[in-house]
Amino acid sequence: MLEELKSLVSDAELHEECGVFGIFGVPDAANLTYYALHALQHRGQEGCGIVTVDNGTFRRVKGEGLVIEVFNERRLAELTGSMAIGHVRYAVGGIKGMENIQPFLFRHNTGDFAMAHNGSIVNYKQLRKEMEDNGSLFQSASDAEILAHLIKKGNFEAHSDRIHAIKEALNRMDGAFAFLIMTKNRIYACRDKYGLRPLALGRLNGGYVVASETCAFDVLGAEFIRDVEPGEIVTIDHHGIRSNFYAEPERHAMCAMEYIYFARPDSDIDGCNVHNYRKESGKILWEEAPCEADIVVGVPDSSLSAAMGYSEASGLPYEMGLIKNKYIGRTFIQPSQSMREKGVKMKLSAVKTIVKDKRVVLVDDSIVRGTTSLRIVRMLREAGAKEVHVRIASSPLVKPCYYGVDITSLDELISARHNVNQVCDIIGADTLAFLSKEGMLKAGRRSDLCCACFDGEYPTELYE
Amino acid sequence: MLEELKSLVSDAELHEECGVFGIFGVPDAANLTYYALHALQHRGQEGCGIVTVDNGTFRRVKGEGLVIEVFNERRLAELTGSMAIGHVRYAVGGIKGMENIQPFLFRHNTGDFAMAHNGSIVNYKQLRKEMEDNGSLFQSASDAEILAHLIKKGNFEAHSDRIHAIKEALNRMDGAFAFLIMTKNRIYACRDKYGLRPLALGRLNGGYVVASETCAFDVLGAEFIRDVEPGEIVTIDHHGIRSNFYAEPERHAMCAMEYIYFARPDSDIDGCNVHNYRKESGKILWEEAPCEADIVVGVPDSSLSAAMGYSEASGLPYEMGLIKNKYIGRTFIQPSQSMREKGVKMKLSAVKTIVKDKRVVLVDDSIVRGTTSLRIVRMLREAGAKEVHVRIASSPLVKPCYYGVDITSLDELISARHNVNQVCDIIGADTLAFLSKEGMLKAGRRSDLCCACFDGEYPTELYE
Amino acid sequence: MLEELKSLVSDAELHEECGVFGIFGVPDAANLTYYALHALQHRGQEGCGIVTVDNGTFRRVKGEGLVIEVFNERRLAELTGSMAIGHVRYAVGGIKGMENIQPFLFRHNTGDFAMAHNGSIVNYKQLRKEMEDNGSLFQSASDAEILAHLIKKGNFEAHSDRIHAIKEALNRMDGAFAFLIMTKNRIYACRDKYGLRPLALGRLNGGYVVASETCAFDVLGAEFIRDVEPGEIVTIDHHGIRSNFYAEPERHAMCAMEYIYFARPDSDIDGCNVHNYRKESGKILWEEAPCEADIVVGVPDSSLSAAMGYSEASGLPYEMGLIKNKYIGRTFIQPSQSMREKGVKMKLSAVKTIVKDKRVVLVDDSIVRGTTSLRIVRMLREAGAKEVHVRIASSPLVKPCYYGVDITSLDELISARHNVNQVCDIIGADTLAFLSKEGMLKAGRRSDLCCACFDGEYPTELYE
Amino acid sequence: MLEELKSLVSDAELHEECGVFGIFGVPDAANLTYYALHALQHRGQEGCGIVTVDNGTFRRVKGEGLVIEVFNERRLAELTGSMAIGHVRYAVGGIKGMENIQPFLFRHNTGDFAMAHNGSIVNYKQLRKEMEDNGSLFQSASDAEILAHLIKKGNFEAHSDRIHAIKEALNRMDGAFAFLIMTKNRIYACRDKYGLRPLALGRLNGGYVVASETCAFDVLGAEFIRDVEPGEIVTIDHHGIRSNFYAEPERHAMCAMEYIYFARPDSDIDGCNVHNYRKESGKILWEEAPCEADIVVGVPDSSLSAAMGYSEASGLPYEMGLIKNKYIGRTFIQPSQSMREKGVKMKLSAVKTIVKDKRVVLVDDSIVRGTTSLRIVRMLREAGAKEVHVRIASSPLVKPCYYGVDITSLDELISARHNVNQVCDIIGADTLAFLSKEGMLKAGRRSDLCCACFDGEYPTELYE
Repeated sequence: MLEELKSLVSDAELHEECGVFGIFGVPDAANLTYYALHALQHRGQEGCGIVTVDNGTFRRVKGEGLVIEVFNERRLAELTGSMAIGHVRYAVGGIKGMENIQPFLFRHNTGDFAMAHNGSIVNYKQLRKEMEDNGSLFQSASDAEILAHLIKKGNFEAHSDRIHAIKEALNRMDGAFAFLIMTKNRIYACRDKYGLRPLALGRLNGGYVVASETCAFDVLGAEFIRDVEPGEIVTIDHHGIRSNFYAEPERHAMCAMEYIYFARPDSDIDGCNVHNYRKESGKILWEEAPCEADIVVGVPDSSLSAAMGYSEASGLPYEMGLIKNKYIGRTFIQPSQSMREKGVKMKLSAVKTIVKDKRVVLVDDSIVRGTTSLRIVRMLREAGAKEVHVRIASSPLVKPCYYGVDITSLDELISARHNVNQVCDIIGADTLAFLSKEGMLKAGRRSDLCCACFDGEYPTELYE
Repeated sequence: MLEELKSLVSDAELHEECGVFGIFGVPDAANLTYYALHALQHRGQEGCGIVTVDNGTFRRVKGEGLVIEVFNERRLAELTGSMAIGHVRYAVGGIKGMENIQPFLFRHNTGDFAMAHNGSIVNYKQLRKEMEDNGSLFQSASDAEILAHLIKKGNFEAHSDRIHAIKEALNRMDGAFAFLIMTKNRIYACRDKYGLRPLALGRLNGGYVVASETCAFDVLGAEFIRDVEPGEIVTIDHHGIRSNFYAEPERHAMCAMEYIYFARPDSDIDGCNVHNYRKESGKILWEEAPCEADIVVGVPDSSLSAAMGYSEASGLPYEMGLIKNKYIGRTFIQPSQSMREKGVKMKLSAVKTIVKDKRVVLVDDSIVRGTTSLRIVRMLREAGAKEVHVRIASSPLVKPCYYGVDITSLDELISARHNVNQVCDIIGADTLAFLSKEGMLKAGRRSDLCCACFDGEYPTELYE
Repeated sequence: MLEELKSLVSDAELHEECGVFGIFGVPDAANLTYYALHALQHRGQEGCGIVTVDNGTFRRVKGEGLVIEVFNERRLAELTGSMAIGHVRYAVGGIKGMENIQPFLFRHNTGDFAMAHNGSIVNYKQLRKEMEDNGSLFQSASDAEILAHLIKKGNFEAHSDRIHAIKEALNRMDGAFAFLIMTKNRIYACRDKYGLRPLALGRLNGGYVVASETCAFDVLGAEFIRDVEPGEIVTIDHHGIRSNFYAEPERHAMCAMEYIYFARPDSDIDGCNVHNYRKESGKILWEEAPCEADIVVGVPDSSLSAAMGYSEASGLPYEMGLIKNKYIGRTFIQPSQSMREKGVKMKLSAVKTIVKDKRVVLVDDSIVRGTTSLRIVRMLREAGAKEVHVRIASSPLVKPCYYGVDITSLDELISARHNVNQVCDIIGADTLAFLSKEGMLKAGRRSDLCCACFDGEYPTELYE
Repeated sequence: MLEELKSLVSDAELHEECGVFGIFGVPDAANLTYYALHALQHRGQEGCGIVTVDNGTFRRVKGEGLVIEVFNERRLAELTGSMAIGHVRYAVGGIKGMENIQPFLFRHNTGDFAMAHNGSIVNYKQLRKEMEDNGSLFQSASDAEILAHLIKKGNFEAHSDRIHAIKEALNRMDGAFAFLIMTKNRIYACRDKYGLRPLALGRLNGGYVVASETCAFDVLGAEFIRDVEPGEIVTIDHHGIRSNFYAEPERHAMCAMEYIYFARPDSDIDGCNVHNYRKESGKILWEEAPCEADIVVGVPDSSLSAAMGYSEASGLPYEMGLIKNKYIGRTFIQPSQSMREKGVKMKLSAVKTIVKDKRVVLVDDSIVRGTTSLRIVRMLREAGAKEVHVRIASSPLVKPCYYGVDITSLDELISARHNVNQVCDIIGADTLAFLSKEGMLKAGRRSDLCCACFDGEYPTELYE
């Protein structure tokens, strides 16, 4: 259950697991960005912001909270213009504060620019120290400010110079990223050379859109064009779109976790639909680890597709044996410890009528610390399940991720310290099986995912 | 698509399609009611309130909006006491205003009392006129105030007298209802003699809970005891629970729409799980109206279970071909007309990668005016579906409902004016089929549902 | 310092010290009422509300908090119509809750009506018991609901009948009041027969306005016509204004406290400007109790006019030796006890540069418990004042008020238990003097104020 | 009427007319800063912020709006630590946006620091261009960011180096300023060498406070020590306070407008109480321009002291002939144009009972465009005043201010284009007189005020 991750990390390492969106050449750009960010809300709920440009003037609204909490009609009305970039932020490691909420806005006599970022730069500390030693001042703890300073070291006045400056800057940055840079008449969309983070390009009413996930296109009625390529910088302006590469694409190592957990099921990433990926993974999971049982139950919401696949392949009926209590927004009063002890369910309830006296196959996307799995297995048994067979639609998590997925502390990963049988005992399941790495690749019909958190094969250098 | 209904009714008839919850003998009653009302939020999003009693003092907080909007920690902290009733309200017919938000609180020298109500009294106008002619003053347009005045006509000082007063009052009221009445040391839970509206009884930490749906029990970890019976008044106090009947139960005519559309899938009503009912209805729908196709797609959220049943029975894969955009809360900025014309989706998007070049079976719970079905069919075709076969998991809606389901205007019901072939043409489907009435009953393994909106057989007298 | 009163009363006696406003025949009535209530905000900060009538439909918005907190543009826009009544509420005795916030709205088949009220009915308990015994139900603890029930006992269909019903009802109610009653095409403005509470009538853009204080007229640019007379019912409708008397006016006993403390200095009450009254009282205070000193300092805000009068009469310079810290609204975080102990000032600061080494005459409007006076005298000495001579622009408070002024507990009144010399010692002043009753009357050039809290001569019967 | 100024300036020149506050060595520093900023609220209502340091960690909350709007208990509780700086901002020239709200926070590997600023740097453009040309990036349009970059050019690791770096940086900046710089264990308080902007030093519970105005000390119960000297840098840390001078003080040119209009009457600036200054200016105004009249009326709030002085010197009674309608906060709905045309008063009402048939001396602090004076004179006549004699407690405004007072557009200043007689005609007064420059100096018993907006004698170079 990857959701555990959100409360796991405690050190101050900042990962930018976020969502970005850009739009060019469409009136009411801020309003459309509002709906797009709402569709990307699952990628970050800590804060969000929108910057527009109108006749050369940059306007920004940002704040802590959900898209519906930060924006209202008055504020959107202030954001005039037909080009905009937006950002939803998932703050990890306890790093909060308005100064870290994006997009960032940099003012300079050669031209202001705004920036939004999803990903994690692995040589961040090295770069920052070098720049501070040269007198640069930082106002946030974000990768994006590094890029801004790097770019400004170059010549940024003419477009041709800018592309050069951006290329040079990106070449200094190693890691996973999707950057949007907006000047007063252009948007530059950049993706790391490994393709670790997704970034898609679309068309809308004569203009262009760019987003972390294609679900943001569907809500707007925009048409998908193609993914931004690893190592590519796509320039969007009144001439249309043009392509530059700052680096030769390396091994195309799209993050497996985007398919397994992060992305919305209706998004397509690098040509593969996320729901399809998950369903396929569930089918392969059945082939790899079949099970005699009465019903298949998925952990909502991210594991439902895999559970359907397992059901379809096995012929076992798929049932709604777990219900998610949607506690949304900052205004929801979380159950206190004493409330939880009284039995108030934080997130999930088991549906007794459905699981009672049944042998249940429980499909989940992953196991991190094991505490959530333990809780769900116990909940199903208390609701009357006769047997609980856990099937995980990914391999055991054994390594930290340095590219934005919020796993940094090896000690916390149950599979790093225990083998499958031990984990099965700890979580109290009757049987337990994980999907193989081959299965994970096969589900996406590709051979090139980054599976570093499963196998330790990091596509980048690791530094320090 | 029953969701259309919410914007359909325009006259000032007030229906109370709501959710009620009561709790007795459990500390922190207000906090627990908060979570229970959150679980019942689907039954009413217009307003909500909680009343507690602490040492004989009634305390109330209520307001317009969602549970998470109306309550905060400070307000909940004011609601001390170990007994409470709560209410979520679905305002129809344009009747808004704080004075109609429940629970109501009545002050009287023989003892204050609070009241919450779900349902619709068919002889409301007759009763109200009679009472106004006798000098009664009303401050709301709610059935609950009628009951309060009727009760006060009786002797309300001793408990034995009260039960008598409540019985007499309920006997004057014809229609569908679930009433909770809270005095300073008792809660009375009353259900109409036809059993039109659901009401369930549970146990929690030595105390008792009562709710419109059992999903409110699960979130609290409460144990289901039984449903309140048609015509029954359950008294809850420090002696435990006692039963009285104000009327002989008539034909047990539980509202079919609760199973088909209203209730949450994890609730059990009168011994039947709602998800199971819907899945079963989908299976029967396949038997009654099979179809040659590639995939089955349900309209989220209320039709997903039926679509799964159809998929399971047919062997056709169940796919996530439609995604619901969850625009929650009063603070969300609804897309303007011009935004919608630009393509911004109000509620649903089709997932192109999934439906492209596919023959789709679209399963929905119902068709009201047909405009939503028309829109969804068109959306699927635009996303590339080769064929769209619509299967409705209930019979054609042809009659108004007088018991709380928000269908009063016959002219608006497409099936009241057109036969199945005509409706199929209007909504642009390749084929269209509805579930038979027998199918609806069979899905619940019962012969006693109220299907008045499908067949005009009203269990009550209709008045005026 | 009468401000102490707000935290003094602890029993559950409800006094309605409030402000009312009505407007007839002017477009945008709700917007104008918003500004008028803002001008009356000093009369009640606990809650407020507005009811409009538009084509026979009553609309209401009300809530807890200041006018600027309860209303926003969206809510005002809902309140269409060219007639309205509004209310600001000062909740005393701990009686809170939305149900007590006015205006009230009563629905009846002979015509809905709304009601707003300022004052206190002395035979409230007797009337309420009598009515409850006859089966009436109450939803608030307000005098206004009593009046509504009394009115409905009469015939309320035709206007002629209504006037009769209102007259009869008012005749049963003894005490201090200003009632506004709004039917779908009329406003009735009623004032008690002693004239205890103020109520003024004005003209605006071809329509009419009525308000607790004339300062509400000035902010709208309305023209003052006259005060509503004691015992009078003014009917405002499309015919203009008509006058009826429900009772012979008795002794005209306008509340002295309105002049001394409650009302805004720019209001005129019964022909006398409040600032002028206070300044005059300060002059008489000098004549009655002169003082050798260097400067005159008033306690802001209500005592500034009296201090100016004292200064003018004495020739001593008036100085701004005390500054009020305006902590406005419910969102202000009141200094905690520990903050106050650290020296954070709750409301007043002394200006050292001004009072240092000076002999100060401190003018205040009244002394209730003496604790505030003690604090101010000490504060002035700490700021370096050599002498502090306290002069009170009213007589010693020795009796409870039953007409809306929030003094009910005799024990708390320092002057009820101590003579002037003792009080002077307790508060630590060098000298202390109160204005005589003759002085209070003379300041208003009238012989007919209600001074019951000073001399115990109550104009009404007292009951129980 | 200097309040006009707020809507006068239209170009994008940013002036920082603000309030700053700092506190060192006192627990609950953020809470105390909250009350201090509230006391300084008159210096800026556009936005505000607080930064604390706790064990080396910087924490910040800032936002648009009043102090009571931006902070709540939860947010203050996050701001732990016993040292803090805070800021209230008055945005002029239409430059809004969160990025311009202070304090600023700069992160650097040699030590983070925060900064708050009141004033205006006259060579801002030259410095910024120079620094941008050297690769510096800016995120705001504020002087404070310039200073931060200038400081970082120096060596900032050890305290001795820091003082040197700050001195060098300040020496490059010409203009009016009061800067607070907070490192993880020190606060540096800096004042420009002309003493154009005020900055005072105080003691509180063993720690220290520093503020734009002493009224912030009084609300906390802090003790005034002395003003920060022109050209001085006061270092506050656990050793106590130490003094350094970055420049020889030049002509001590405290801004006259602080006394005349900006500051709170209870503040002392450079040893002179503001209320006393204003009262004295009123007395001198009477001597310079006496008048035969019945009453003296001041324009609230800033002109009341001067009016009292005029009254005292002349023997004419001071009366409350104008009332200010306090429309506070961003939530107040400003009267629309149509409302204002109907007569709804924006800010001031005349009190008819007081001014009717009177010869009025109207005392105001200044005249900018004349439109407000015109409106007030007309309002008094409509209220019945027989004559209106305008007396202005400062000289005619004829020159732009470059030091933070929001007067930049010469064309708008009525006195720059018209002589006194013409202005008298334009505003419709019977007579008009201004205070002489000598009078302005004499009122403060000093010879060294900056009166540049009155006489064009700018203490600094003007650049470009």
